[in-house]
Amino acid sequence: MKAKVYVTLKLGVLDPQGKAIQHAVELLGYEGVADVRQGKYFEIKMADGALGEEDARKAAERMAREVLANPVIEDYRVEIEP
Amino acid sequence: MKAKVYVTLKLGVLDPQGKAIQHAVELLGYEGVADVRQGKYFEIKMADGALGEEDARKAAERMAREVLANPVIEDYRVEIEP
Repeated sequence: MKAKVYVTLKLGVLDPQGKAIQHAVELLGYEGVADVRQGKYFEIKMADGALGEEDARKAAERMAREVLANPVIEDYRVEIEP
Repeated sequence: MKAKVYVTLKLGVLDPQGKAIQHAVELLGYEGVADVRQGKYFEIKMADGALGEEDARKAAERMAREVLANPVIEDYRVEIEP
């Protein structure tokens, strides 16, 4: 079983790295780009048979909240793939 | 319109950052974690009405290939959201 965790900055939080990417792609000639925001993406492979889907989701959400994201400035989203 | 770009290391490529995270979550007491891999996630907001869905996808894929990912060691995936 695999958990996918997406971590993004909250909406009000400045994202200078995203702004730098936006500026770079504009310089490279891409048009129509209004905004770029960068986040993080984690794939967590769970040991086979160690956890059921519900427990895997709970474990991944706890990991996202406690380790992978900073809940003060970041949002996270968890997806479970069998 | 919004394009979401996911960039992950190719399967054979070592991911020391992912290994460090796996080691950290194990030390913190999480069980059943077989592997962790870290990737990058980008949200690209396109200017309203600037591009149709097909063109937006093409632009996002070109950006992913040329700017956001290193195709030698990374894979990328593009999703378009209206």
